[in-house]
Amino acid sequence: MAEESGKWVLMVTAQTPTNIAVIKYWGKRDETLILPVNDSISVTLDPDHLCTTTTVAVSPSFDHDRMWLNAKEISLSGGRFQNCLREIRNRACDFEDKEKGIKIEKKDWEKLHLHIASYNNFPTAAGLASSAAGFACLVFALAKLMNAKEDQSQLSAIARQGSGSACRSLFGGFVKWIMGKDEKGSDSLAVQLADEEHWNDLVIVIAVVSSRQKETSSTSGMRESVETSLLLQHRAKEVVPKRIVQMEEAIKNRDFSSFAQLTCADSNQFHAVCLDTSPPIFYMNDTSHRQFSTNMETCFRIISCVEKWNRSEGSPQVAYTFDAGPNAVLIARNKKVAAQLLQRLLFIFPPSSDTDLNSYVIGDKSILHDAGIGGMKDVEALPPPPEINTVPAQKYQGDVSYFICTRPGRGPVLFSDESKALLNPETGLPK
Amino acid sequence: MAEESGKWVLMVTAQTPTNIAVIKYWGKRDETLILPVNDSISVTLDPDHLCTTTTVAVSPSFDHDRMWLNAKEISLSGGRFQNCLREIRNRACDFEDKEKGIKIEKKDWEKLHLHIASYNNFPTAAGLASSAAGFACLVFALAKLMNAKEDQSQLSAIARQGSGSACRSLFGGFVKWIMGKDEKGSDSLAVQLADEEHWNDLVIVIAVVSSRQKETSSTSGMRESVETSLLLQHRAKEVVPKRIVQMEEAIKNRDFSSFAQLTCADSNQFHAVCLDTSPPIFYMNDTSHRQFSTNMETCFRIISCVEKWNRSEGSPQVAYTFDAGPNAVLIARNKKVAAQLLQRLLFIFPPSSDTDLNSYVIGDKSILHDAGIGGMKDVEALPPPPEINTVPAQKYQGDVSYFICTRPGRGPVLFSDESKALLNPETGLPK
Repeated sequence: MAEESGKWVLMVTAQTPTNIAVIKYWGKRDETLILPVNDSISVTLDPDHLCTTTTVAVSPSFDHDRMWLNAKEISLSGGRFQNCLREIRNRACDFEDKEKGIKIEKKDWEKLHLHIASYNNFPTAAGLASSAAGFACLVFALAKLMNAKEDQSQLSAIARQGSGSACRSLFGGFVKWIMGKDEKGSDSLAVQLADEEHWNDLVIVIAVVSSRQKETSSTSGMRESVETSLLLQHRAKEVVPKRIVQMEEAIKNRDFSSFAQLTCADSNQFHAVCLDTSPPIFYMNDTSHRQFSTNMETCFRIISCVEKWNRSEGSPQVAYTFDAGPNAVLIARNKKVAAQLLQRLLFIFPPSSDTDLNSYVIGDKSILHDAGIGGMKDVEALPPPPEINTVPAQKYQGDVSYFICTRPGRGPVLFSDESKALLNPETGLPK
Repeated sequence: MAEESGKWVLMVTAQTPTNIAVIKYWGKRDETLILPVNDSISVTLDPDHLCTTTTVAVSPSFDHDRMWLNAKEISLSGGRFQNCLREIRNRACDFEDKEKGIKIEKKDWEKLHLHIASYNNFPTAAGLASSAAGFACLVFALAKLMNAKEDQSQLSAIARQGSGSACRSLFGGFVKWIMGKDEKGSDSLAVQLADEEHWNDLVIVIAVVSSRQKETSSTSGMRESVETSLLLQHRAKEVVPKRIVQMEEAIKNRDFSSFAQLTCADSNQFHAVCLDTSPPIFYMNDTSHRQFSTNMETCFRIISCVEKWNRSEGSPQVAYTFDAGPNAVLIARNKKVAAQLLQRLLFIFPPSSDTDLNSYVIGDKSILHDAGIGGMKDVEALPPPPEINTVPAQKYQGDVSYFICTRPGRGPVLFSDESKALLNPETGLPK
């Protein structure tokens, strides 16, 4: 280590995307190593709209490992954090920055304590895969800080031990998490199927129905499904392997009809397995409070809206998928369809009177522009979707919190610009 | 036929129970013959509270077949009615009533037209198996009228062709519909597992959440599941055969824990298969109108209430099962538990202020008495269920239409008392 111990702080800042599974991960065969019962496939979401930014720092002046999430200090004592930290420290290499006079040898890393600050630009733990982006970002940033030589797939196997779906956030575009066979998990890792440019017609609209934390954690929900659902094993062994092959083919060929059909069917099957669990898991819902009682209804309304439209068009225009939380992820065939989708969604779910359109539709505002919507007057003037035959067409003002317009996006990046760091370069404490 | 043709009306009046499946029937292997993809098991409900009464009549004065359901004339031209009529006419035998001077030979039956009047003492087509009771009653009454010699199981194979679950309404108590192997369906019929006295501790409380007709008919829903759900075949081939064996054993031994566990798991799995269908079937719900938007919530609240209570007791006290419609059928271990169940249900779902308690809890009023509830003051004074830890415990006034307290009941009966007939013995027209 450098002579002037305590005088320096070495930091790395990285940004990592979240991802949405189109073939779902549900069920672990090993809870500690986080080894899944089936392969899964995801689309990485553009980090411009949904991402985690993490700064990791070491300094001889730090006396214990500390972490801040969204500016609030949280405990690092959990097994999942510890597993990731241990795995990365085991892979740390010699590091030298002659300019700053910092030299850290491989053996020194385990004596140095870490400060970690992480920030999500979207609601935590509401089914928008915040832990996926978070653990991916932590592992990626630590690997860069500690000069680890592992490639992205090898890092994904470490991130997997923090949160299963985190392994898929190590890549942009379309990503497969291979379940692997090794009982130690060495081959349970992510690979990129295609980058974000491969199919850049796709537009993604997320309807955030509730930003509240979900009632059943994924971990306990999965465990209960594995233990009690008689359909889960059949899904894992018989259904998913075929769907994985079909989905890879659909992505390769940019075959939207197959992609949408598989995505919707797999989302529904995941929720079916949750319902087949004892006691049944009601993910899209919260049964204890009236104010959240419309969440599941809203999700079903969104499914119905998409199903009706797809049927009226004769071929799928939009795919829907729901993770463990009441937020709909809608994938539109192209930008034109996305504008039509947004028109439909805004017709059915107009913002509350006290909500500003600008904060109701966030992310890529060009979709709003394409939809011809510049203000609330345009929302009010929207005609009912022609495929809806209920007269008058029902509206559900306020049932959606907000919409995020986004697209398939890139994988993790490092920020060399120190102004983006979440820790003060002098003190190593949150800015 | 008798000489004075046109002067007489020959009638039979029968009453047939409805039934609730505890191992569900979902999916046909033959749509015309109504042959299922798996065996099912049901409990027959006491006809004192839920039944169909049907009067069938022949007279040389009738010039075509006619039917009235709940006093409204309906068409008999449907294939299902025609199949049942044809099958029974094929089995008609010579009949003679010397007193009335009526003599009908086997060959004469097909020349005689029928008048049929049927009445359900509960809402039609809302998932309370009205078509089950209806077709069972039609076939049973016609068989008696036409002096057919078939036993109940043989008649069940005819009723099955009207509505699959109707075959299970030919018996009281606990009934199995054997799927059979014959491609013509001759061995797809119901058998009684145990009569209604075998396990007479059980009390059944039905929460009628909506008496509205369901949006997706069972027939088209089943067809879509068979065509699109990859979980349905696994359920039919692998899951249900094991559950049938376990359920028969549970019924034989009056093993409530196993009975309840199997009943709840199978109800949830049936709904899981509906969700795994493309497009997904949302049975417990109606997505198009706000006023019905709480139905599914209510069902989930009832499931949650039962699950929490069962867990807090350490062993199941109550089983729940939901058919294709938003009504919960709750089966309590015994009368004492049923009273506690009713207390919980009335606490969570008190009647609307304009609803009279007497019409809110119908059927076997002794459960209300055992629960210590004589009037609205007693409902208001109910303490929250101790296992609910939300403070204050939420109440959902008006979300349940009414409750029916009942029990396992007897099979079809004939009424010899002509005052119970629904047709005028002189004219053969509805009274």
